[in-house]
Amino acid sequence: MFEFSVTATDGKARTGVLRTGHGEVATPVFMPCGTCGAVKGVTPDQLRDTGTQIVLANAYHLMLRPGADAVAEMGGLHKMMAWGGPILTDSGGYQVFSLSSLRKISDAGVVFQSHINGDTVNLTPEKCMDVQTRLGADIIMQLDECPPADADKEQVAQAVKRSAEWAGRCKAAWERADEGQALFGIQQGGIFTDLRARSIESLVELDLPGYAVGGLSVGEGHEKMKAILEHTDGQFPRGKPRYLMGVGEPRDIIAAVACGIDMMDCVIPTRNGRNAQAFTWNGRIKLRNAAFAGDTKPLDEKCTCYTCRNFSRAVLRHYFQAGEMLAATLVTIHNLAFFSQLMSEIRQAISDGQLQSRSRKWMEQMYPVGGTDL
Amino acid sequence: MFEFSVTATDGKARTGVLRTGHGEVATPVFMPCGTCGAVKGVTPDQLRDTGTQIVLANAYHLMLRPGADAVAEMGGLHKMMAWGGPILTDSGGYQVFSLSSLRKISDAGVVFQSHINGDTVNLTPEKCMDVQTRLGADIIMQLDECPPADADKEQVAQAVKRSAEWAGRCKAAWERADEGQALFGIQQGGIFTDLRARSIESLVELDLPGYAVGGLSVGEGHEKMKAILEHTDGQFPRGKPRYLMGVGEPRDIIAAVACGIDMMDCVIPTRNGRNAQAFTWNGRIKLRNAAFAGDTKPLDEKCTCYTCRNFSRAVLRHYFQAGEMLAATLVTIHNLAFFSQLMSEIRQAISDGQLQSRSRKWMEQMYPVGGTDL
Repeated sequence: MFEFSVTATDGKARTGVLRTGHGEVATPVFMPCGTCGAVKGVTPDQLRDTGTQIVLANAYHLMLRPGADAVAEMGGLHKMMAWGGPILTDSGGYQVFSLSSLRKISDAGVVFQSHINGDTVNLTPEKCMDVQTRLGADIIMQLDECPPADADKEQVAQAVKRSAEWAGRCKAAWERADEGQALFGIQQGGIFTDLRARSIESLVELDLPGYAVGGLSVGEGHEKMKAILEHTDGQFPRGKPRYLMGVGEPRDIIAAVACGIDMMDCVIPTRNGRNAQAFTWNGRIKLRNAAFAGDTKPLDEKCTCYTCRNFSRAVLRHYFQAGEMLAATLVTIHNLAFFSQLMSEIRQAISDGQLQSRSRKWMEQMYPVGGTDL
Repeated sequence: MFEFSVTATDGKARTGVLRTGHGEVATPVFMPCGTCGAVKGVTPDQLRDTGTQIVLANAYHLMLRPGADAVAEMGGLHKMMAWGGPILTDSGGYQVFSLSSLRKISDAGVVFQSHINGDTVNLTPEKCMDVQTRLGADIIMQLDECPPADADKEQVAQAVKRSAEWAGRCKAAWERADEGQALFGIQQGGIFTDLRARSIESLVELDLPGYAVGGLSVGEGHEKMKAILEHTDGQFPRGKPRYLMGVGEPRDIIAAVACGIDMMDCVIPTRNGRNAQAFTWNGRIKLRNAAFAGDTKPLDEKCTCYTCRNFSRAVLRHYFQAGEMLAATLVTIHNLAFFSQLMSEIRQAISDGQLQSRSRKWMEQMYPVGGTDL
């Protein structure tokens, strides 16, 4: 089961509802990463308490360890993660090109070496669908070719062409499996607007349940990302969800929503949480900083998360200094709650028709001129 | 506020109730270790859900980092840890002799080097009380001298004498502070029954709120420990709580309770949890074992903890193999819940007058002849 409806618009931005077999999701939504089948450092109960609506897991990692069959034997991804809400699995395309070595790519698919044990693995569009069917997520992604950030236009055009062909093969395999999952296509095209347009055109012809913007957030920078996303609302169908992969920083999220993006994912809240960096409405806090040793305030005065209700900056800093793993858990909880609160504020602003003015205020608070980090 | 009453007896074993300013504790009780002001890997909410009644924190670690004054500025140990229940702080005596270097011990106190930064620290009975007053635990411990496990009788006798003198000075400082904390004396004497008797006699003369058995669980082995504890019920006053420090394994706990011990602490459930070892009614499980890769059972079929309700052995093993820190948290939760359940069963058995027969059954299940570990 999968439906999407737009409920309000404000410029190009929109709020909406995703309906899945594991519940509804209010969009725009941020999806925390549960790469290996766990959102790092938090239990599913803690995750729900942060306001998280939907999580992402990586087919690439799970295919290699413990294996798609092993996950199926554990009862599928929802049971394995003890997460009753919606799940999206990435196809592995991006990870094949960013994590593995010895890649041989052809029209048939891609052969690569596992980053875990060096095993040679053959990944085709059909295998990619088979893996994601066994994992059992609500939303699954096509296999795509992700050219490096410094690829020339010819290489990017080739990746666009191949990704479109693979989308067609993924669709055929997905229809045969018929498991009620929603298949999303992935737009490539790098920083070339015409290639981006060509890419989404060929995907839209397949009439898939949703479409993603791939190949951004690979080092092109905030301004270039914004320039590409300017065209998304014009290129993507209005009635289908739009998912910007691998984004991001609060400023990237705010900019993407303004361009009509509905879904995003990134490791930033969890990874930064483990590294003692907390997000707040007044910018990032680096808890290793000695200035926080005597700071009895919560991470963010407005935040209502478990961490902010119970622990001060001074205590969290002490836990990091003492090597207590609880520190990583507590700041991860806060960061995930902050991202949920940010998305909730964004949805409210769109409903109120105030996204532009409120975004300006948030940006001034979070990214003041002359430096952001405390 | 501090009271103790015995509610039932079965042989030397007894159930009782500790009443503190932060709530009641049913004894015999196991106290998880929150060494640096956090029970490693679990939030205070998770800790409460495991059935934990009271936690231990280490004055030695907290005195060195962040410092007793810093903890006081954070609002004291209860606020710092976000733990509203009772807390006991160890005096640091044991850690000075086990963790630090360059110790110079005299009747005045002990001078040692911090294991964290090499600072020279002077710890006297009076300083020890001052530190623990600032930390603000419900139960505090006297400074004692802990001779090494291979010390000869003369050395042990000297430590008994000095520990008794320090107990008197601690009592005087504790009475001056008058903060409503309960001060426990610590019996030393190694494996020498006559020295143990002399040690507790001099402590009982001070009429302290409680008494601990120190200097065991330092490598003397299960049988020698039991032989020493045989004398505890005869030596210690009946109306005061008896705390066996640093114990231990389920079999040590069961043996200690049978000798009349009311309180125990150990890092085993938390440390083993982080190292992929789970306690069950059928012995230990080492989750790294490949045999668990396809095991969809919970860690223990009888356990009702969060981990056993939500995760199989196969999933937990996958999380350890994938390096997910959630694995450590989940098995720590289970181990703490298991220790709580064990203590609850022990208390019930004492109330029923069945401790000996049930202990025999538990021992046969947990430590079968020919090996215990799965």
